[in-house]
Amino acid sequence: MNYENQYQKYRGKNILITGGLGFIGSNLAIKLVDLGAHVMVLDSMIDTYGGNLFNIEPIREKVQVNISDMRDIFGLPYLLKNKDIIFNLAGQVSHIDSMTDPETDLAINCVSQLAFLQTAHQHNPAARIVFASTRQIYGRSKYLPVNEDHPINPTDINGINKTAGEWYHKLYHDIYGMNTVALRLTNTFGPRQLMKHSKQGFIPWFIRLLIEGKTIQLFGTGEQIRDINFVDDVVDAFLLSGIDDKAKGKVYNLGGEPISLLDLVKRMIEVNAKGEYRLVPFPEEKKKIDIGDFYGDYAKIKNELGWEPHISLTEGLTKTFDYYRKHRSHYWS
Amino acid sequence: MNYENQYQKYRGKNILITGGLGFIGSNLAIKLVDLGAHVMVLDSMIDTYGGNLFNIEPIREKVQVNISDMRDIFGLPYLLKNKDIIFNLAGQVSHIDSMTDPETDLAINCVSQLAFLQTAHQHNPAARIVFASTRQIYGRSKYLPVNEDHPINPTDINGINKTAGEWYHKLYHDIYGMNTVALRLTNTFGPRQLMKHSKQGFIPWFIRLLIEGKTIQLFGTGEQIRDINFVDDVVDAFLLSGIDDKAKGKVYNLGGEPISLLDLVKRMIEVNAKGEYRLVPFPEEKKKIDIGDFYGDYAKIKNELGWEPHISLTEGLTKTFDYYRKHRSHYWS
Repeated sequence: MNYENQYQKYRGKNILITGGLGFIGSNLAIKLVDLGAHVMVLDSMIDTYGGNLFNIEPIREKVQVNISDMRDIFGLPYLLKNKDIIFNLAGQVSHIDSMTDPETDLAINCVSQLAFLQTAHQHNPAARIVFASTRQIYGRSKYLPVNEDHPINPTDINGINKTAGEWYHKLYHDIYGMNTVALRLTNTFGPRQLMKHSKQGFIPWFIRLLIEGKTIQLFGTGEQIRDINFVDDVVDAFLLSGIDDKAKGKVYNLGGEPISLLDLVKRMIEVNAKGEYRLVPFPEEKKKIDIGDFYGDYAKIKNELGWEPHISLTEGLTKTFDYYRKHRSHYWS
Repeated sequence: MNYENQYQKYRGKNILITGGLGFIGSNLAIKLVDLGAHVMVLDSMIDTYGGNLFNIEPIREKVQVNISDMRDIFGLPYLLKNKDIIFNLAGQVSHIDSMTDPETDLAINCVSQLAFLQTAHQHNPAARIVFASTRQIYGRSKYLPVNEDHPINPTDINGINKTAGEWYHKLYHDIYGMNTVALRLTNTFGPRQLMKHSKQGFIPWFIRLLIEGKTIQLFGTGEQIRDINFVDDVVDAFLLSGIDDKAKGKVYNLGGEPISLLDLVKRMIEVNAKGEYRLVPFPEEKKKIDIGDFYGDYAKIKNELGWEPHISLTEGLTKTFDYYRKHRSHYWS
C-alpha cells in the first residue's frame, strides 16, 4: 500500500494523461497533482464516452485541460513534446458499440494509437508511455487464473483492435527501444466512472440501479466469475509502471480476488443496505461475445513492481456508493 | 493432386478475386477461368505492388478487370453483390514498408478489411470469403512445426495488422455466421510474382539475381529454415477452401517441406545451371524483425480438405526460371 517513497519521483515531472477526464485517468490525475507533478489531461469529451469535467473538480485549477481526440493528430506533436511520462488511457471501451460501429472503434483504438506512437517516436522518443490495455484481449480463458502467456484470442471487434493497440506499443519498444509499458486491466470500479448508460461496464450500472432503487437483472445463473479492481489500486499500478525502470517494454496483468457476479451483487446490496436482483436469460447479442469465467494472475507485476490490490471489495463499494450518492447530479444522464 | 472432381463446382460460379492482378490472385484467376467460372479481378495497380496486367495475359478476354483499391470503399457494395465466392488476397505485403510507412499498412490491411467485411455483411452475407493470411502472424516459433494453435505473436507492423485482418474475418463468422475461411500462407514462389524490387520476398529476388548472373547475398549463416510452397499448390488450397463446406469459419496453415535458405539457394543454382552466393552479416533493420527458423504444420487442412503440396521444389523452380527467362521484360523494372 505504501508506495509513497517510489512516488517521490513524480515531483516536478511533466505528465500527459490521454483520456484524462475519464474514469481512471481523472483519478490518476488527482493523485499525480497530489504528488507534485505537472499534469496535462487530454480528452475528447465525446458525449457518450467517459470524459466528465466534474471528475477533476478537486484539482480544477491545478491541471491543464486540453480538449482533443486521439484522432486529432495534428496537435499531437506539440502535446507530446516535453512530457516525461505519458499515461495513454484514451480509447473506445464499449464492446457493444464496437460491434455496431466497428469503424469508429478501429479509428480510435488502432489508427490513432499507431499515429500516437509514430508522433511520440518522432517528437519524444524517450518518454515513458504506459498504455491501458485490457484482459478482454484474452477472450475466453483456456485456464485460470490467466497469466500473461495465455493465448490472445479476442471475441469482439474492440478486443481485436485493443490487441493491435497494445502490440504496437510493445513493437515500438522492441524495434525502436521506446519506453513503453502495457497494463491489461480487468473490471475496474470506483468514483468518477461513467454512469450515464450501461455500455461501459456492468458494475457502475448495477450501482446506479441500486441507488435508484431498481432491480438488477443478472444474466444466466449469475455464477460467472470475474476479478475486479477498485480504481485506487489501478491508479497505483499506473503510477508504479510510470516510474519503475523494470517495467520498460513489459506487459502486466492486473487482477483481484475472484468473485461470482451473484456474490458481487449480494455484496453491493449489503453495502447499499437494500436492493433487489433477478436472474434473466442471457440476451443473444451479449451471449455471443461473453467470455465465461475470468480472473487474472497478477504475480508478474507483484514480483517485478511490488503491486497488489489493497482495497477490499466492501471498502471499495462503500467509497463508491458514498461518492455517487453525494455527486449523483454530475453522473446521471 | 487430382481435385478436379471437387473443382467441377466452380463451373458457372461468380467469383471475385481482390488483388487479382497480383501473384497468387492471377494464378488463381487463370485456373478458375479454366474451370468455367465467371471471374472478376479487382486490383489497385499500385506501382510498387504486385499487380501486373501481363499476369492475366492467357485469360485477358475471359475475365473482368476492375481497377480499384481496397481503400476505395464506395464502389464495394456493387462489386461484392452477386458473387458466390470471394478470394480476398489484396494487401500490403512488405514487412519493411510496414515499418517505414505503418499508416498505409494499417489502412490497407486493417481499415479496408473491416470495411470490406462490413460491406459484405450488408450486401452479400452468404458469400464464401477466403482470406489470404500469413504465417508471419506467429512471429518467432515457440515450437516446430507450428500448428494453428501456436500463439500469435507478430514481430512487425505488417504482422500485427494482418492478425487483425484475419481475426475480423473469423469474428464475422463467429458473430454473424458469415462464410469466411482464412489460409495462413507461408513463403510462396512461382510465375507471376513481383520481381521489380526485393521487398516482397527473398525467393523471387534470388531468382532474379541468378537470371541476371549476379551474386546472391545470404544473411547470417544461411541455416535459417523455411518451408516454401509453389504457387500452383497454393492455388489448390484456395480452390478447396472456396468450395468445401467443412472450411466454413476455419483457419488453416499451408506449409511445405522444410529447407535451409542455403540449401534452397544451392537448389536454385542447380536448376539455373549456374550462379554464386555469398554469406553476409545480418543487416540490423532486418535482424530486428527476423523470425528465426520456421515451418508450419499443415495437417489440419490435409485432414479436413485433403490438401497437400504436390509440386517438388526442383519442379517448381524449373517452371519458375523458365517463366521469367521467357517473360523477363514484363517483370523486371
